[in-house]
This record gives sequence, C-alpha cells and structure tokens, in this order.
Amino acid sequence: MSQQPLTGHERPGDACTIVIFGASGDLTKRKLLPALYNLKALKLLPDNFAVIGVAVTDGNDELYRQKITSDIKEFATRPVDDTCWNDFAARSYYVQGDFNSQGTFEHLSAKIADAQKTWNLPGNVLFYLAVSPTFFGKVVEQLHGVGLTTEAPNAWRRVIIEKPFGHDLASARALNEDLSKHINESQIYRIDHYLGKETVQNIMVFRFGNSVFEPIWNRRYIEYVQITVAEQLGVELRGGYYDHSGVVRDMVQNHILSVLSLIAMEPPSSISGDSVRNEKVKVLEAIRPMEPEEVLANTVRGQYGAGIIDGKNVPAYRTEPDVDPNSNTETFVAMKLEVDNWRWAEVPFYIRSGKRLAAHTTQIVIGFRRAPLMLFGQEVQNNITPNRLVIHVQPDEGITLDIHAKRPGPNINITNVPLDFTYADFGEHTAATGYETLLYDCMVGDPTLFHRYDSVDASWRIVNPILDVWHALPARDFPNYEAGSWGPEAADHLIQKTGHAWHHYQIQHKL
Amino acid sequence: MSQQPLTGHERPGDACTIVIFGASGDLTKRKLLPALYNLKALKLLPDNFAVIGVAVTDGNDELYRQKITSDIKEFATRPVDDTCWNDFAARSYYVQGDFNSQGTFEHLSAKIADAQKTWNLPGNVLFYLAVSPTFFGKVVEQLHGVGLTTEAPNAWRRVIIEKPFGHDLASARALNEDLSKHINESQIYRIDHYLGKETVQNIMVFRFGNSVFEPIWNRRYIEYVQITVAEQLGVELRGGYYDHSGVVRDMVQNHILSVLSLIAMEPPSSISGDSVRNEKVKVLEAIRPMEPEEVLANTVRGQYGAGIIDGKNVPAYRTEPDVDPNSNTETFVAMKLEVDNWRWAEVPFYIRSGKRLAAHTTQIVIGFRRAPLMLFGQEVQNNITPNRLVIHVQPDEGITLDIHAKRPGPNINITNVPLDFTYADFGEHTAATGYETLLYDCMVGDPTLFHRYDSVDASWRIVNPILDVWHALPARDFPNYEAGSWGPEAADHLIQKTGHAWHHYQIQHKL
Repeated sequence: MSQQPLTGHERPGDACTIVIFGASGDLTKRKLLPALYNLKALKLLPDNFAVIGVAVTDGNDELYRQKITSDIKEFATRPVDDTCWNDFAARSYYVQGDFNSQGTFEHLSAKIADAQKTWNLPGNVLFYLAVSPTFFGKVVEQLHGVGLTTEAPNAWRRVIIEKPFGHDLASARALNEDLSKHINESQIYRIDHYLGKETVQNIMVFRFGNSVFEPIWNRRYIEYVQITVAEQLGVELRGGYYDHSGVVRDMVQNHILSVLSLIAMEPPSSISGDSVRNEKVKVLEAIRPMEPEEVLANTVRGQYGAGIIDGKNVPAYRTEPDVDPNSNTETFVAMKLEVDNWRWAEVPFYIRSGKRLAAHTTQIVIGFRRAPLMLFGQEVQNNITPNRLVIHVQPDEGITLDIHAKRPGPNINITNVPLDFTYADFGEHTAATGYETLLYDCMVGDPTLFHRYDSVDASWRIVNPILDVWHALPARDFPNYEAGSWGPEAADHLIQKTGHAWHHYQIQHKL
Repeated sequence: MSQQPLTGHERPGDACTIVIFGASGDLTKRKLLPALYNLKALKLLPDNFAVIGVAVTDGNDELYRQKITSDIKEFATRPVDDTCWNDFAARSYYVQGDFNSQGTFEHLSAKIADAQKTWNLPGNVLFYLAVSPTFFGKVVEQLHGVGLTTEAPNAWRRVIIEKPFGHDLASARALNEDLSKHINESQIYRIDHYLGKETVQNIMVFRFGNSVFEPIWNRRYIEYVQITVAEQLGVELRGGYYDHSGVVRDMVQNHILSVLSLIAMEPPSSISGDSVRNEKVKVLEAIRPMEPEEVLANTVRGQYGAGIIDGKNVPAYRTEPDVDPNSNTETFVAMKLEVDNWRWAEVPFYIRSGKRLAAHTTQIVIGFRRAPLMLFGQEVQNNITPNRLVIHVQPDEGITLDIHAKRPGPNINITNVPLDFTYADFGEHTAATGYETLLYDCMVGDPTLFHRYDSVDASWRIVNPILDVWHALPARDFPNYEAGSWGPEAADHLIQKTGHAWHHYQIQHKL
C-alpha cells in the first residue's frame, strides 16, 4: 500500500527547538512525551531537534533526563528503542522557574541559544503551553519580553495553546487581545485534539472525495442534521475544572461546533489550512445567535443524578469529588441551531452532549427528506423512516447509509436496510496518543486542525447568549436525569416539537 | 412483520376457469401445475376455480387427474397437502384435440360451460398458451371462432402468451396483427418470467422508495450504465430453438431491454400497470436505432468454443446437440446503446450477455462521474475509480454502493470501500417456480410484469437493425471466445473506446 503525502506530510517536521511549559505536569508525561517519541520513531520528528522542559519544580538537565526516561517507560504507547530514546534524552533540557519571573525567560532564552549551538539548530522554536489558561497571556508576554516571539527567516516561533480559549466571549476576546499584542495570528496554534486529524480528514474525504453525496448535501434533500457526543464517564478527576466549565464550554463551543462546521461547510477551494478554516468560520458565522426567548425554547440543560452504568452504581454529579454540592453546572445539553445560509436555511441542526449517558459514542446523523411521491402507498411508506446517513466517529469509525429495499415476498413491503462500512475492517490503528499529528502539523506549519481566532470568536457568539440566559435563570430541577439514561426527557420533547427523534446507531461488523 | 398489500394483492385472484393449451408439455408439468398448486396453498388462487388442460395427447378427465396427481408429487416445490390437492384435482378437466380443428374448441367451449355450471363459476376465463409460437395466432383465432374471446361483465377473457413474441420486427407485427383481429391489447398478457416480480419491484423500490438516489439519477452525475447477464450454462437441451434464435433474441430483445428500461425510466405517476409500462416504452423509444456502420462500431458478437468451467471441460457451441456444426448463431453479445432523452443524453448504456461465461450473474452497474474537484490531489484521486452503485439481481440479490474513504493513517490515502447489503440476510425465499406471480397477476388483471405490444415493437426496432447487419455480414471468426471466459476480447475493446471497463462484483455477506 503506497502512502500518499498530504502537503508534504512524508517529510519530517522542520528542525527546531521544542519548549514545553508545564513540563512536570500530567499532560506532558502522559501525552506529549510519548507523542514526541512516537514521532521520532516514525521519522516525522526532524533528525535534528532539542526539547526544553520548563516548570516551577526543582530540577536540572540531568535530573530531568532521568525523570523522562522513567516516564517514557511508563507511558509509551509502543516499545521504546534504546538507541532512539538515548538520542532523545541527550537532546532534552530543563529550565526551572516561575512563569511570572523575567529571570525564568532569560534563563530559557540562554538555554535555547545553547541548544541551538550544541546541535547546530536553526532558529525555529515551538512553544507548547501545557499550563493553566490563566498563564497563556503571561507566558506569551514574557516570551515577547525576552525577544523570543520575533520571527526571522529560518526562525519561526509558534505557540501551541491548549483549550479552553476563554471562558466566555469577553474573556476570549481579552485573551486574544493580550496575545496579539505580542504575536501574530499565524503564530498561534489553538489545539483541538478531541477531533483528531483522522476524523476531520475522514469527514472531508467522505464529503468531497465522493461524487454521490455532495449533490444532495443541502436543504433540498436534507431535512435535519443530528450530532451526538455522548460519554458514559462522569467528571472523573476533573471536577474542579468541570464545575466551572460545564458541557457547553467543555464540548459544544469547541468540538461540536467544529464537527458541525465540517459537515455544513461549502467545498473549500483546496485542503490548505486557510481554505478549510475560511469555510468553517463562514458556517459558524451563519449560525443564528439566539434571543433569550429562543434559548428557552431551543435548548435543554441537564445534570446527572445517581444511576447505573454497565451494571455499576455511579454517583450523582453533585457528589463527585471537587464539585459544589449545590452546583448548577450543566453536564448535558441538547439544542437546536439554525444555519442561515442558502445551503441550510430551515434545516435544523440538533446537537446533544452529556456525561453519564447510556453509551459512549460520537455520531453524526444526516436525515434526508422523504421521497416526494408515495409511489408504493401511504401506509407502506409512512411506516419507514426516510433515508439516513450516519457518520460514526467513535468508538467504531464508519459509515452507514440507511436505505429502503423491498422485503422478499409476493407483496410490496418496504424495509430499512443498512449499507454500511466500518474502519475496523482495515485492521488496527497505529498506537498513538492523539497528539502526534498536532505536534507534527505545528512543526510543518499546517494549521488546518487548529482553531483560528475568528472561529473561536464565532463559536462564543453562538454559545454565549445561551450561557447568559442559563446564568440569569439557574436550573431549578437539577439533577434532572439519571446516570445511564439518554439525558432529561425535555431533550426528547425538544426534537419532537419539529417532528424528529434522536437516533443512536450501532455499526455492523462484516465477516 | 405485517405484509403490506399492493393493489389488493392480499386478496385471491378472481374466480375463473384456467385453460392451459399444451397441457401435456414440459412447461405445464414442471412449472405451471406446481405454480397453481402453490397459489392455492397460499390462498391466492380463488376458492372457486376450474382448470382445463388441452392437448393432442389422448386422455380424459379421469386419466388427466391421475397424471397431474403423479406430476405434482414429482414437481411440487412444497409438501403437497392431500385435502388441498384433492380439491384441485376434482376441479381439473381435460380436452383432447388438435389446435387446428374447430371441433376441439367446440368441445372446449362445452367443457368450460360445464365446469362453470358444476362449480357455479362466473364467466372469467384465463387461457394459457404453453404451446409453440407458431400456434399463438391459430389458437386465438379458434377461440374467437367459438366466441370464447368475447368479454362481458363478470366474464373477462385473458390470454397469456409465452415468449418469443415474433422472430423479428416484421413477424412480431404480423403476429400482433393476427391477434388483434380477435382480441384487444388489454386481453393479452405477454410473459417475461425471467425478470420475475421480485427483481422488477426491487429496482422500483430502490429507485423510488429512497430519496437519496433519484436526485443523482441522470446524466449530470452518472457517466455510464452497465448491464451484464452472464450464464455459465450452454444451450443445454434447447439447441434446436437456440440455434434459430441467438442471444439477442433470447435475452436482449426482451429481458435486458426490460431491465434497462426499469433503470432508465422516469418516475411513473403510479405503480399501476399502465403507468409503469408507459414509462418503460418511452425509454425504449428513446434508444437510438443503429445505422449499419454504427452496428459495426457499437456491437460485438461471439460464439463459444470449447473450454473449462468449474474445472470441467465443456464442448464448443457448434458441437452441442441440435446445433448446426457450421452455425453462425451468436451466443454472446456486447453493445453500446444511447438513450436520446434529457435524462440520459450522452450516457452510454453498455449491455452484455452470453452463454458459457466465467460466472452466472445478472448485475447492473451505475458508474458515477468523478467529483468535479480533485481536492485531495490528482495522484491520490486518479488511482481510485469513481463511485459506483451495483444492483445485484442474481444469484445473490443485493446492493453495493462503492464509496471512497480515507484509509487510517497519518496521510490522506483514499480507498474504495463497499457499503453493501444482500437480500440473503433476510433469510430464505418462499419456494416458488417463478410462475406464481405471473399467473396470479393475470387473475387480478395486473399487467405490470407483462410486455405491452408497443414495448415489444420498440425492442424489435432496436435489435432488428443489428440482426440485419449481422445476417448480411456473417461472422468469420466464430468461435471467438473460450467457454469459461468473459467473452471475446472485442467486447473489452468496445467499452475501452469510451474509457470504461466491464465490472464484475461479488456481494459480501455480513455476520
């Protein structure tokens, strides 16, 4: 099987120095370090590179190398090759310091210069901010203060920022203003690892690599779109963060609106980062922000009570660790959005997401309109749902096209049959942490999978009016769904109002 | 599972007398008798009926009842219930006589009157002409002579005619003229049992019961259509008939053009017989008849030599029983047809059929155009065939939609994946001879599956110019394909001229 390169993705990333802020944190040891090692093993990391960890924890280069050597043995997703690892460790450095102190950044600047000299590296530097969002602005300001944000030929300077980008529209704008004082939009890589490259590319290949779907991908043939992101997990160890966030900030504002824009966008003129991101932001900007009365009519919020999942009792949200026992944070949301453009006018986009639901699944359901003529008799055709296309994102990736066929027999009796396909039939995926492609894409300057600020802003403009109304009118009925259910009943009523129903599909595996 | 009725198909046929000409022939004992018995067992035959066999063989009612009781035991497709059969046998009669003699028909007339009186039957009579085509005109003339073709309230008179209907355009017209002197078009049921109701209805349900395919079912999205009817069998015991017929008369003029018209027709305004037949004939009339030079460019004929099928040596056509050792009869044909209407202009319809080919299969392949933009790079997309939809008619009925998906991995690598479905997943079909629905439809007056004369005429107008050129310029290279191959190489060249290739798909079975 010959692998086809996408914008040069066969080549390793640019030779560079990778600086990780928050080097002693969980994200670094569990995800980033294994991801960088995997890239090296796959020869997608440049042959020539250096990694500098920055954190407040005491340490030095030697202790840091010992720590990561022990970490990688614990968290690697593939067997660790000694030669490969030893080269990685030898190129690793540590800077101890407080992010508020200019001294830390002067120290970092000297360390970068040393590494560049030692390994004969160009001036390229990737800064990964694996830190609390409260430090995003500060770190960038400090980097700028010591001249580390200034680009030059052979010296790009890129900053990867973890989510969340802001807590609401105002704070997102403030943060962006802070950053843009010191760095350009083109230097900012706002990560959305949840979707992952595979899913995004699958949706794009499916839509634009097949000639049969795009002609019917519009309001004339599609009656509604549904996106479900359901988790069985609760808040786990993230209660403290989650209780200040809720599902809209944690899932809808970024991930779900991003999936929605991939489904709804116009065909881009190319697959370059900006072409795709231009189309995605156009969709977000076309989503009609809700007036307060529309929020009440078109959204449903929920919070889980205790319940049973996979035969086990699980606690109510309010009794989870680090959660306020009187919390009004929503762990479930269902809403109806309208995309006001020529392609989608009057086609409802239903989205729902929640924790402690009945299944762990991400699915997109495209509901087609009924055939215009009931050729086979109203009674026969009323009993069958119109055609549906289901894009299964996880856990089983695949595609189902629900069509109608005649059941064998002397009479016309129409039944739904699934035409389907699962990616599992291709065999196992390469073991990965999900961060490989994002780190790699940053090293080659491909921003497709990262959020551009205009998208972030547009997303907040959609969800902010909802959050405002909910804040002004706190829920009185929380908890309003049992763990292990499909959320509050009101979510069913929401979609039934327009004559539809939530679907949950399981993909079939072939022989 | 509730069965949905189609135009009242839950009810039994009209009470009537069924007259079978050729009652001592093979067709009667192997197919018609078991089919009638099955209809009775399924309660689709009217409770009140009579069957009268007519043949030259000596016999009487009692001997005939003995004979069919022995025949049904041999040829029934389901266990024979004694009570049910005894009623059938008691209602069976025999008329011995020559079809050229008026006495035979007077005798028949009296027998019908007797049966009607005995069983208190209305005047409805179904005449089944299971006789050589040379007798079609004669029998109908004789029936008319004794007043048996005259209809009245509660006395329909319908005539089922087996294929072939004519040997060419002129003889078809002459035959039709003969018949229409004595009976109306609405009384004539020209059988096409090859397609069978199931296939016809499947294609119609697929096209018009799904809203997703009809919008792309036209020249804008479809690049070509292929219909393959391939047999592994040779001429078997039909050498005498076949050597005067050939594959164009045996398969193309009736069956394949009928399938083609189902695929290409406009949506009918209803599924009533005449609505569907009106649309089918419109397609046939839109097929451009070929000029002699077009016949040479757009058709390929073949005759099989000896070869190997399923590991067994099989003889050349010219050495088959009852075949002329110098025969120039074609056993294979491939051709390109053009449908000159708004929906299909410039979309080639490739058809091919033959005996002693590599597989036993009937398949319709709809080839879609490429996506208009090579978004993922020319190299990636050139390597994949555009989307195809395959309607499997036999032996495995089902549907495959060939789409493109991204192969998992870091790069964009597009591959074909089949979304498919097989009717076998519904379980076994009811045992049947293939004649049940045709006999039944005639008894309820549903002519959908029968050829109306205008279709027969239009079909002959398409194939006659081809037969004429072939007759004028006999093939010099026969035999030109080996048994067990996919026909002569010229058939591949024919389709390659327009940049296409023949496809043969196997359907996948699911878990």
